[in-house]
Amino acid sequence: MIAAFAAREKGGRLEPFEYEPGPLGGSDVEIAVAHCGLCHSDLHLIDDAWNRSRYPLVPGHEIVGTVVACGPQVRELRPGQRVGVGWQRGACLGCDLCVAGLENLCPEQQATCLGHPGGLAERVRVDARFAFALPDDLDGAAAAPLLCGGITVYAPLRRFAVGPHSRVAVVGIGGLGHLALLMLRAFGCEVTAFSTSPSKRDEALAMGATHFSASHEPLAVLEHTNRFNLVLSTVHARLDWTTYLRTLRPRGTLCLVGSPPGLLQLPASLRVTGERSVAGSDIGGRATIREMLQFCARHKVAPRIEESAMTEANVNAAVQRLRENKVRYRAVLSR
Amino acid sequence: MIAAFAAREKGGRLEPFEYEPGPLGGSDVEIAVAHCGLCHSDLHLIDDAWNRSRYPLVPGHEIVGTVVACGPQVRELRPGQRVGVGWQRGACLGCDLCVAGLENLCPEQQATCLGHPGGLAERVRVDARFAFALPDDLDGAAAAPLLCGGITVYAPLRRFAVGPHSRVAVVGIGGLGHLALLMLRAFGCEVTAFSTSPSKRDEALAMGATHFSASHEPLAVLEHTNRFNLVLSTVHARLDWTTYLRTLRPRGTLCLVGSPPGLLQLPASLRVTGERSVAGSDIGGRATIREMLQFCARHKVAPRIEESAMTEANVNAAVQRLRENKVRYRAVLSR
Repeated sequence: MIAAFAAREKGGRLEPFEYEPGPLGGSDVEIAVAHCGLCHSDLHLIDDAWNRSRYPLVPGHEIVGTVVACGPQVRELRPGQRVGVGWQRGACLGCDLCVAGLENLCPEQQATCLGHPGGLAERVRVDARFAFALPDDLDGAAAAPLLCGGITVYAPLRRFAVGPHSRVAVVGIGGLGHLALLMLRAFGCEVTAFSTSPSKRDEALAMGATHFSASHEPLAVLEHTNRFNLVLSTVHARLDWTTYLRTLRPRGTLCLVGSPPGLLQLPASLRVTGERSVAGSDIGGRATIREMLQFCARHKVAPRIEESAMTEANVNAAVQRLRENKVRYRAVLSR
Repeated sequence: MIAAFAAREKGGRLEPFEYEPGPLGGSDVEIAVAHCGLCHSDLHLIDDAWNRSRYPLVPGHEIVGTVVACGPQVRELRPGQRVGVGWQRGACLGCDLCVAGLENLCPEQQATCLGHPGGLAERVRVDARFAFALPDDLDGAAAAPLLCGGITVYAPLRRFAVGPHSRVAVVGIGGLGHLALLMLRAFGCEVTAFSTSPSKRDEALAMGATHFSASHEPLAVLEHTNRFNLVLSTVHARLDWTTYLRTLRPRGTLCLVGSPPGLLQLPASLRVTGERSVAGSDIGGRATIREMLQFCARHKVAPRIEESAMTEANVNAAVQRLRENKVRYRAVLSR
């Protein structure tokens, strides 16, 4: 039996829960969880915001732990090895997208917490090919948020060819946004942080932002008209996208990594005149995750975390702080 | 004096009009017009759809003619040379965008028919650096539509790296769309033509489309779910963009070269899941125009035109056919 914390119904409190994992799959590993981050998507899962949750639901998909058992077909990992697991626990590995290194877009992709128990537990099982060996230099607790939040913001920086010549804006300085700031500092960019919380100004500047803009004032945003090569929006709220499109340079890209509800409304003219683009990005493939972990080790990208012991009281307190947008900047539960 | 045809008021009929062009600018050329295509944008100009028209308005920005006079600073052209002129008649040529070959995005760009008289005339003047020498192999009348319609569809094919490995859809088989089909045949793509006119099926297939789909039926469009690397929309109407986004492969791009009125409404989830993009494209820079002209000469890309003599009756008849979407596929007025 594996001890975990689960929501038993939509929006439910996390309660102790035990499950029988059955025989270990041939390509799977079992991992003893050491640390698990809490991501905004965990709230969506608990609340069934995507109408895909199944209960009891064990959240947690920013997992760091130690391999304790390997299925007979596992080649690359061995017991005792420290690994990380993110949003994705499996893919077909045979389709065109998988073989192109875009396993995150595989139609057969499996999510760590959808139909499978996640990482707020003593142990977790995933396909070994989605458990990533961690560089020794990475602190375990601080590495946990890299597995989902980190790759979510890193992949578009690479896809849109960000470099020391780039001007980049990060919209929303929370779990994802603060990781973007830390990474962009290593990329050597000019970075503007947009946040509705003026109290985050000093921290954003300390994390590498060149400028801070209080984005609840549209006029403050428009001071940056025609400035950015890339605007990376990490927020789940509906924003005035027209205003942010205006901050792009011609040929610039507005990339959404959060999922705002409903429809995006955009003026067609801003697209055509200036050849601006809007794109989505969704975690990253395995090669990009491996690269990101090496990148974070080399450039000492360490998320700012609120670490606490993985007890029933603490996991629920962390969920509550996440609901209230109080976490600075990522909650990590450690065993 | 230069004889031309002009609308004297918003939506007005084109009438004979003479204007005094003044002294020739130092960097300008005067061109004796031989052929002038009529583009959908000419209707927008006549109707002041963009609130930027000034009257009397001489439309026409798909111009082929012969240089008859050169200002003293003109280096690359000489009298007697055959040239083409498109939507753009000038740019600052000094800003970051101009020096990057993106003169079409220059904030100081000048349009051939906005504040200047266009090509439905015996002569026209533009900055010599926006008059493009035509390859000898191009027929003059058939080359005219390349200068605006041609570059408008060619530039995104190059920007989004279309090649013989690509699956491309063209939405709208009119002046722009039929040029896209002819070009895509040369690129060696699998090409699907979406048109609300089932009567265009045979012609679209003859122009190089691999498949034809009657796009007034959403279910017919959805038969192509997850198929295209690029969907090139050439229409000015509001479409059900969600349906077309579904026809994109993951990482695919929906590129708009027409300007639908109002706001685009797009579901955020399709962007994030599948990492699809929406982009705009707006004519092309000078290097791309030169390349496109060589490409069309080499691959014998010849627009299907309705050619008539540039008389008052004929220019108004052509405008009327354009309004009624009856032109197949481009009206060209020849002197």
